Amino acid sequence: MAEPGVSHTLAELGGEAAKSTVSEDVAEVERVMVEEGHGLIERAYGPSGGVGYLPLPSPDRREAVLDELAMELSRPDRHLQGGFLYLTDIVFSPRWAVRIGEIFAALFYPTRPTIVLTVETKGIPIALMTARALGIPLAVARREAATTEGPTLGLNYLSGTARRMGSMSLARRALPEGSRVLVIDDFLKGGGTMGGLLDLVREFQAVATGVGILIETAEPQEKVVTGYTPLLHLIQVGQDFHIERVKGP
Amino acid sequence: MAEPGVSHTLAELGGEAAKSTVSEDVAEVERVMVEEGHGLIERAYGPSGGVGYLPLPSPDRREAVLDELAMELSRPDRHLQGGFLYLTDIVFSPRWAVRIGEIFAALFYPTRPTIVLTVETKGIPIALMTARALGIPLAVARREAATTEGPTLGLNYLSGTARRMGSMSLARRALPEGSRVLVIDDFLKGGGTMGGLLDLVREFQAVATGVGILIETAEPQEKVVTGYTPLLHLIQVGQDFHIERVKGP
Repeated sequence: MAEPGVSHTLAELGGEAAKSTVSEDVAEVERVMVEEGHGLIERAYGPSGGVGYLPLPSPDRREAVLDELAMELSRPDRHLQGGFLYLTDIVFSPRWAVRIGEIFAALFYPTRPTIVLTVETKGIPIALMTARALGIPLAVARREAATTEGPTLGLNYLSGTARRMGSMSLARRALPEGSRVLVIDDFLKGGGTMGGLLDLVREFQAVATGVGILIETAEPQEKVVTGYTPLLHLIQVGQDFHIERVKGP
Repeated sequence: MAEPGVSHTLAELGGEAAKSTVSEDVAEVERVMVEEGHGLIERAYGPSGGVGYLPLPSPDRREAVLDELAMELSRPDRHLQGGFLYLTDIVFSPRWAVRIGEIFAALFYPTRPTIVLTVETKGIPIALMTARALGIPLAVARREAATTEGPTLGLNYLSGTARRMGSMSLARRALPEGSRVLVIDDFLKGGGTMGGLLDLVREFQAVATGVGILIETAEPQEKVVTGYTPLLHLIQVGQDFHIERVKGP
């Protein structure tokens, strides 16, 4: 199956054709795309203000991708000393980042986010690809205030599991007031980092419209945050672990 | 003009057609694509081992994109206190990251890299999009050793301008021995960080086949490293600055 991944405005694809002559074609193209699970057509989308293609996977395709990913991540050679899971190659893989980003885009598209937010480092590729699939910008909170980004807004938070203080900051101009923020991260254990990100959203006078997590650990069962959507569960029993796809929605 | 950005294997696009029946179509499609500056067809490309589409921009398109980017980056409101240039929104923008990544991919495709390497944080999106356009993986060096990535190889380096020690590390399994490494970063001033990255490549028994830099500062003229390819120059005179596209190659 072809891997979707890029937004063309149909006005572009149609070359010099006037928009009114394209509209019937748009409806027909959309009918075929939705039937075949490739995505949907968005009117008045993108900087050109025309129509565009959002490469959103169908539920069937999403489940197939996540089944494959769960199997890949459950491989025994990903089990590191200290009970950690090696997923660096997956989250930095362009191929996986595109597919995960498109899944998040499809899940959160109805919430109409205007920007994606993540915190460095491993969440950046999937957050970037989510933003790309939705045609919106990305903001990245830093662990230390970057002196080269102008005025920043920072805060401290309590790590949910390690009981340590963490800090993060974001350039003032990176997140406009009133933004509808889709927060994306690769891993959620206790939820402390995500709690910090959500506090940061509020400090910027913005609103979090959704939270997408690639992998949520089953333990601890009680998290600092609620209302997030994980794609995968990490289930750890002693030194063994496996990854399961979260069923639905 | 349509923005290219994704690899479809032509075998996929052709559905169930046997590869041999597709090959004449491949030649014809390639002829048209190269003529129109959209990219080229790569045989035996990607995990499926078929043929694929590398979305490489033509020299004309590259110059147009870089002219637009130089103008955007020269805007006075990007001038921060302390003489810094605000480019966070650009390097984290999916739209710009895709276009910059495709330019690097086109420039370095002939050197046949097998992996892209960058160092966190701001270089990650353009490095990811370069890797995506080339159909190869990405490795990301960390400023501090990440305890969750298994054994790492780290080193210290002297920052070229600040005369400070920096450190970086990379998971042992992130960069296979013998890799042909395309090193990508967003900014080069003294070259100390890039020197560290190139040392890291050697420590992994790999070889750097190219170094791509988004913005190189004109000052200091003497850098710690040589042989890199910048796309833009930052020229700073007192408190004023502007960005120029590097001519050629």
